[in-house]
Amino acid sequence: MSILVVGSVAFDTLETPSGKRERVLGGAATHFALAASFFTKVRVVGVVGDDFLPEHEAVLTSRGIDTTGIEHVPGKSFHWTGSYVKDLAAAETLATDLNVFADFEPKIPASYLDTEYLFLANIDPVLQSRVRAHMPNAKLVAGDTMNYWIAAHRDNLLKVLRELDILIINDNEARMLSGETNNIRAAKGVLALGPKSLIVKYAEHGCAAFFSPHSFGKAFEQGIFRAPATPQEEVVDPTGAGDSFAGGFYGYVASQGKLTPEVFRKAMFYGCVLGSLSVEAFGTDRLQRTTREEIDQRFEHLKEISHL
Amino acid sequence: MSILVVGSVAFDTLETPSGKRERVLGGAATHFALAASFFTKVRVVGVVGDDFLPEHEAVLTSRGIDTTGIEHVPGKSFHWTGSYVKDLAAAETLATDLNVFADFEPKIPASYLDTEYLFLANIDPVLQSRVRAHMPNAKLVAGDTMNYWIAAHRDNLLKVLRELDILIINDNEARMLSGETNNIRAAKGVLALGPKSLIVKYAEHGCAAFFSPHSFGKAFEQGIFRAPATPQEEVVDPTGAGDSFAGGFYGYVASQGKLTPEVFRKAMFYGCVLGSLSVEAFGTDRLQRTTREEIDQRFEHLKEISHL
Repeated sequence: MSILVVGSVAFDTLETPSGKRERVLGGAATHFALAASFFTKVRVVGVVGDDFLPEHEAVLTSRGIDTTGIEHVPGKSFHWTGSYVKDLAAAETLATDLNVFADFEPKIPASYLDTEYLFLANIDPVLQSRVRAHMPNAKLVAGDTMNYWIAAHRDNLLKVLRELDILIINDNEARMLSGETNNIRAAKGVLALGPKSLIVKYAEHGCAAFFSPHSFGKAFEQGIFRAPATPQEEVVDPTGAGDSFAGGFYGYVASQGKLTPEVFRKAMFYGCVLGSLSVEAFGTDRLQRTTREEIDQRFEHLKEISHL
Repeated sequence: MSILVVGSVAFDTLETPSGKRERVLGGAATHFALAASFFTKVRVVGVVGDDFLPEHEAVLTSRGIDTTGIEHVPGKSFHWTGSYVKDLAAAETLATDLNVFADFEPKIPASYLDTEYLFLANIDPVLQSRVRAHMPNAKLVAGDTMNYWIAAHRDNLLKVLRELDILIINDNEARMLSGETNNIRAAKGVLALGPKSLIVKYAEHGCAAFFSPHSFGKAFEQGIFRAPATPQEEVVDPTGAGDSFAGGFYGYVASQGKLTPEVFRKAMFYGCVLGSLSVEAFGTDRLQRTTREEIDQRFEHLKEISHL
């Protein structure tokens, strides 16, 4: 089954303890799409400027990703400048040049309208709601958000949350959304806002999924699942790790066509694997170099080191 | 197989968001012994004052714990006063009254000398080394330490680490010992100091075990194992959680008589279970009230929420 992802396609200028990179291909939709492309067909809706060249588009199309929905407009693409020199776990934003992304109005190609798996990457919740409304045939809808929307656009965000089957956020975002510091209470607080299920990412500590009592039926009534992270001795660039997690997770879910607890759990493991690969090189380099075989090897390793 | 634990038997005065308690029974050896007592026979070496009454000793002996090695001397028992009001994850020490513990010189009863499983709880590393030397028949030696010994008594501590089969510490201690911030590099740095294996506790994120390449033979060459924590919505009192973890872990190990990867892994799950029980009431209350049946139910639950 295909996935439609709506989100940023951008350039990142990055500084980490491992070095510097100028204007490498990035953006939530880019990382997500590359990660998901190892499992299923992916369609992208986004906007780019004149600086988005055929060589950049080829990074996506060479993985079979459908870029029909990437709109090209005059001007420059979204450009984020960030540093992880002080703390690899927390990006310091040095500049956010929205450029053509400032006026992003997602346009969904007719050929995308039959997509059953929708992923709303981290964009203005008003746009997330609008895309959701344009895709009535989507049978599963997942999404992401960030501190900015939680703090300054809460009401719009709450509308989105009520329409989500799966919300995928990190632990800080879960605490902000719920006002709770305890991880379990934070997750329950977020679920009370409406999403049927929630995945909270804990960086090097993996992730946990939480399910509303009547989310996806009786099979999910266990209520929680905990997945470990791949042991990561070296992090070159954390940018896009969360989007790669989401892509790996949702790509596997869509590839299975049916949402069972086993599919959901395996998808979380695959998400952890794609997230771990993503941080091993700058930008999308590592995702471009990996293979399904390597991904499956890491999946098996993750299982070996976490199962009795 | 029996375990001998050497460490503090104390009283704690505690303040947490859930309330206050004056002079409840505590100490590392107490929590450890109670947790381990659900799996095997436990022998305790420690020192207490006149304020340690028969009713306190009965908490241990009623669980079948051998208290022959608890020395009674004139004066007051070790008394720690701490608060978790600002942060449940970090104890604020308000007072440390060592009292009779200041001159603690572990004396091992003759009846303890055949103990095969030795646990050196968090005490002066000089004493840990001395106890180790008095127990040449111990076939497995595990131990704990804390920031104070790492910072101010490093050389003495390093001697202990080289003699340990299993070091059990938390993530802050692993970072302090190794000087590394990345969890995996921190663990490798600690292993390089000599212990054959290392368990790092990550509080609500469970724990991980790391093995030296030639620690316990080829079966352990996977090098790492990751165990989740029991989801804990309410923490009443974190005091003793780490010691209860160690007791649950080591109690199960000793009960099996043979150290295989499967035993080690299951023991980590049991450690997590005992740690999670411990925090649900003040002091040792929850450990006194639990049963092996409840422990095994939590073990199964932990497996259910973490296995594919």
